[in-house]
Amino acid sequence: MPLTPPPFTADDHRARMDRATRAAADAGFAGVLVAPGPDLVHLTGYRLPADTERLTLLVLAPDRDPVLVVPALEAGDAAHAPGAAALTLRDWTDGRHDPYAVTAPLLDPKGRYAVSDNTWALHLLGLGAALPGLSFAALTSALPMLRAVKDARELELLSAAGAAADAAYEQVLTLRFAGRREREVADDLADLLRRFGHERVDFTIVGSGPNGADPHHEAGERVIAEGDMVVMDFGGLKDGYGSDTTRTVHVGEATAAERHVHEVVREAQQAGVDAVRPGVTCEDVDRAARAIIESAGYGDLFVHRTGHGIGVTTHEPPYIVEGEKQPLVEGMCFSVEPGIYLPGRFGVRIEDIVTVTADGARRLNTTDRGMALVE
Amino acid sequence: MPLTPPPFTADDHRARMDRATRAAADAGFAGVLVAPGPDLVHLTGYRLPADTERLTLLVLAPDRDPVLVVPALEAGDAAHAPGAAALTLRDWTDGRHDPYAVTAPLLDPKGRYAVSDNTWALHLLGLGAALPGLSFAALTSALPMLRAVKDARELELLSAAGAAADAAYEQVLTLRFAGRREREVADDLADLLRRFGHERVDFTIVGSGPNGADPHHEAGERVIAEGDMVVMDFGGLKDGYGSDTTRTVHVGEATAAERHVHEVVREAQQAGVDAVRPGVTCEDVDRAARAIIESAGYGDLFVHRTGHGIGVTTHEPPYIVEGEKQPLVEGMCFSVEPGIYLPGRFGVRIEDIVTVTADGARRLNTTDRGMALVE
Repeated sequence: MPLTPPPFTADDHRARMDRATRAAADAGFAGVLVAPGPDLVHLTGYRLPADTERLTLLVLAPDRDPVLVVPALEAGDAAHAPGAAALTLRDWTDGRHDPYAVTAPLLDPKGRYAVSDNTWALHLLGLGAALPGLSFAALTSALPMLRAVKDARELELLSAAGAAADAAYEQVLTLRFAGRREREVADDLADLLRRFGHERVDFTIVGSGPNGADPHHEAGERVIAEGDMVVMDFGGLKDGYGSDTTRTVHVGEATAAERHVHEVVREAQQAGVDAVRPGVTCEDVDRAARAIIESAGYGDLFVHRTGHGIGVTTHEPPYIVEGEKQPLVEGMCFSVEPGIYLPGRFGVRIEDIVTVTADGARRLNTTDRGMALVE
Repeated sequence: MPLTPPPFTADDHRARMDRATRAAADAGFAGVLVAPGPDLVHLTGYRLPADTERLTLLVLAPDRDPVLVVPALEAGDAAHAPGAAALTLRDWTDGRHDPYAVTAPLLDPKGRYAVSDNTWALHLLGLGAALPGLSFAALTSALPMLRAVKDARELELLSAAGAAADAAYEQVLTLRFAGRREREVADDLADLLRRFGHERVDFTIVGSGPNGADPHHEAGERVIAEGDMVVMDFGGLKDGYGSDTTRTVHVGEATAAERHVHEVVREAQQAGVDAVRPGVTCEDVDRAARAIIESAGYGDLFVHRTGHGIGVTTHEPPYIVEGEKQPLVEGMCFSVEPGIYLPGRFGVRIEDIVTVTADGARRLNTTDRGMALVE
């Protein structure tokens, strides 16, 4: 399989690091500390397993060039990251160096730093022990916008990921549902996502009948039957950017009650999408979708937030949830995915990724949101 | 494929949580806070993706039963965890509850808590904001022994994982190396690990020729050639417990220099294993292995620690490294894996998992450590 060239250059990464550094300074922080994971991928292009006890940490501060502290063992890999030319590596060796002592001279001893949400407690406490005057704020509260607003190339990649997910959905509708296990349909969905260019599949939820009423159900051994409602929620990464789509289909003819619930959710999703425009808050979008479901009498059965951001992960700020006062900004991308879950009976959820434009939302998923009837 | 029954019961998990709570109290802590990941798996049997921004946290404290704070969406899954009967669930809902406010009443507002190393900074800072009098210590420094000493059933599972890795190694020796890419041999190794019962393969490093001199090299497009030294380091999880083995083989006849380096590493590994017994410190084991390599003049080319613990992960305390004063205790399991890396030429590493017995080390890997010649 041909490898896709890295979509971003060292200059792109330099610009992102500069922007993050400036945003941190503007917000009164001494700098930004970035742990392995999506923030580091976004800023430097450097991907490594997040699950490591060895300290890797990008230090951004206004008065110096970016420095990436890395274990000596991994310095070779780090030097090949797309953004490597825009930063300095500082390596440390097991048993010879204390990684926190190596990092300390890069920090203002009394500084307040924004840190990646997923920075390990081990490292935060290690830095705090080396420099007791440090203080920290989580990046999503300190600089929630850091990855939220996508540039043109990112929007292109997110659109392509959404189109691939749409193509997978169109294909899955042609398959047989009745008589097959949820897991088999989920495997087909995963294969289709890969066939349409995803290098990573994060989830392929298939919740049939009563399983659809558990929004966290993944896909199990239940055999799908004629008359089942089936929730399918699927996504992953294509060329490093995420897809996440939900459609709810029905096996054979649906009852009037099933059609009604599906229609309420479809209207709620439309209301959420219609509420999107620059300056509107995240919670306003949640409220717009939720109001439709509440006024139909199902408010208690919509048990999750309306959406979440998407980018180099399939789950990131902004969160479309009550209490989130963040105003929407052009270029943000997130899901709008209301649902109704009738315990023991069935569930319905409909989800598209949208991006904020000057004129309102643009959907990155465009397949029919009506209740498709499958066999 | 038949599913393996969970190897541990709610009583096992209750005993582990009791032990952790007592150990924390004995060490002067108000309790233990456990995030998703290996600590939570070990204590409760509950596995979930660690990469979630929604708070899941086990609270252990001497004056109350264990409580698992979980997102409402995931409460159903948590209720099915093997240890669920030994704890109380406390759920919180997006947009309705602040998860830190839900957790706060379970904590001593001025308490010092041991927290899982991999707890997200987001959550640590969230708890600190809810209760500014809290303080924290990372679990591996606060209670390094928490998962380090394995019980009889765990040793059985680790031995079985080691035997499966050994079987995979014996098989890979019968395959062709010359003319094939590292990645192809790595894929074969992964298939063999799965065939011998691994449900998860964490790494299959194949470093041929100069690639073997980079201890972090994984497996690439290099075509293995006659005359190459080839480092193979492979492992994963079988029935939830880890394997991790390294052998260094040679394609065709080796030179005297290659044989010499391999023999130095073999002797160093033997010296490390021979140093293992209860009461000896971790750094003593590192020193014993390192001394052989230093006295052979290769000290600067042994660029990593001698080993790491293994259990429900393939990388955990105790770390066999200079500065680690932790005395060994019967039932601990860890790798002994010295290496010599000659930049631009080749590398040699030899690794077994050992467990500490009253009489010294018992190896969980028993394949020949001599330099196998492959085709």
